[in-house]
Amino acid sequence: MAQAEPVTAAVLIIGDEILSGRTQDTNLGAIARYLATFGVDLAEARVVGDITAEIVTALNTLRNRYDYVITTGGIGPTHDDITADCVAEAFGVALYEHPEIIAMMTTRWAGELNAARRRMARVPVGGSMVKNPVNGPPGFQIGNVFVLAGVPSIMRGMLEDVGPRLRTGAVVIARTVRVEGAGEGVIAAPLEILAKAHPNLSLGSYPFFGPEGYGSNLVIRGRDGAEVAATVEELVAALADIGANAITRVEG
Amino acid sequence: MAQAEPVTAAVLIIGDEILSGRTQDTNLGAIARYLATFGVDLAEARVVGDITAEIVTALNTLRNRYDYVITTGGIGPTHDDITADCVAEAFGVALYEHPEIIAMMTTRWAGELNAARRRMARVPVGGSMVKNPVNGPPGFQIGNVFVLAGVPSIMRGMLEDVGPRLRTGAVVIARTVRVEGAGEGVIAAPLEILAKAHPNLSLGSYPFFGPEGYGSNLVIRGRDGAEVAATVEELVAALADIGANAITRVEG
Repeated sequence: MAQAEPVTAAVLIIGDEILSGRTQDTNLGAIARYLATFGVDLAEARVVGDITAEIVTALNTLRNRYDYVITTGGIGPTHDDITADCVAEAFGVALYEHPEIIAMMTTRWAGELNAARRRMARVPVGGSMVKNPVNGPPGFQIGNVFVLAGVPSIMRGMLEDVGPRLRTGAVVIARTVRVEGAGEGVIAAPLEILAKAHPNLSLGSYPFFGPEGYGSNLVIRGRDGAEVAATVEELVAALADIGANAITRVEG
Repeated sequence: MAQAEPVTAAVLIIGDEILSGRTQDTNLGAIARYLATFGVDLAEARVVGDITAEIVTALNTLRNRYDYVITTGGIGPTHDDITADCVAEAFGVALYEHPEIIAMMTTRWAGELNAARRRMARVPVGGSMVKNPVNGPPGFQIGNVFVLAGVPSIMRGMLEDVGPRLRTGAVVIARTVRVEGAGEGVIAAPLEILAKAHPNLSLGSYPFFGPEGYGSNLVIRGRDGAEVAATVEELVAALADIGANAITRVEG
């Protein structure tokens, strides 16, 4: 099968709380799995603190390199929420108060729509809203950059409005062969032979060990489902050849 | 208090399985919290796939920019474990089989020390071992770069051999003021005034909301414990001034 040009994306995670270890990021994996359903490859991720120069530089690098960038974090009302300012600076445009967001906020907060909350209505010139179905003000899109919240439940809600805007690629199909009682050291040779025979596929080995035993999850990923399925069977046969048993085929 | 020159570090997470969303990284937070106990600031993190050029470029950027780099992942025996090769390439040196690691492996695997397992004994010229107290071969250090396993339990074990090698900084003290029943929109103004009055501190706001209510965790971080403690009290007073109650002081 001809390989279509892959569609690529990067994630830029913004926030001191991730780099201090205070908050465990879970957005990266959620975004990766979501993009995969559209055939978009997450190619890189970066985590930067709440520092304007860092955010601007990272964003400009990533948006010039990949088809899409998704940022998370820093879009709330407090002084450390500087993502909108940084995105506008990266694109060399101004921020303006989006009238539709101001209207939503006026309904929600009535007389309590203060300066801090109005900060969340700011969108760079040329940008459009990304709907927030969960709680509070929306994110926004400008060019190939989507600016989403950092709170995971809100981020995932916003993501639903990102997918329909993406140029999609061929979806990657993943299958796992789980082998128990055989270490990576003996699996490595047959796995490498298969990897070399299938340059269009990605073959990975993810070992496990613990009280319940040891072994490895061997993951085969590719865009040609027939090749992936055939390679699963080649791998199972190769593992049997080296004496491995307790082999399980797992979807995904 | 005079501000000592901060000691900085970056984390480079290597592995397709993180970017595909298959594996949830937990190493970043563990490393961040560990480095914090030595007064080392985690300033940036990147996640790259199992691609030589990506790993080499990211590593060279980060090691030239920060005092230390810690990499995780890609040091096993399979074909997709290319971290040692990439680190050697980044430093422009060769890999060699470390005799001490070969000796350990010979004891462990006896006649089953095959080519795949020998790959894990390779260390760049000029590098030294990082002990693995958990399972299997060690990691290594070369220059300001520490190369650790990706499996979290092993990574954390190796980390214990990293700390004693670090130039340490002044430890950051963090205190949290938790306020319930007041949103970020009303907290933002007094918080910003405090942030401007204390440029040596970092003040962050991390909102929460759910069935149990809403509010924000306001985190004050700095290297001068007296200033942090005084600012906690200023913040509590400022929150009381705007009518917030249900204020709790939390360590860390």
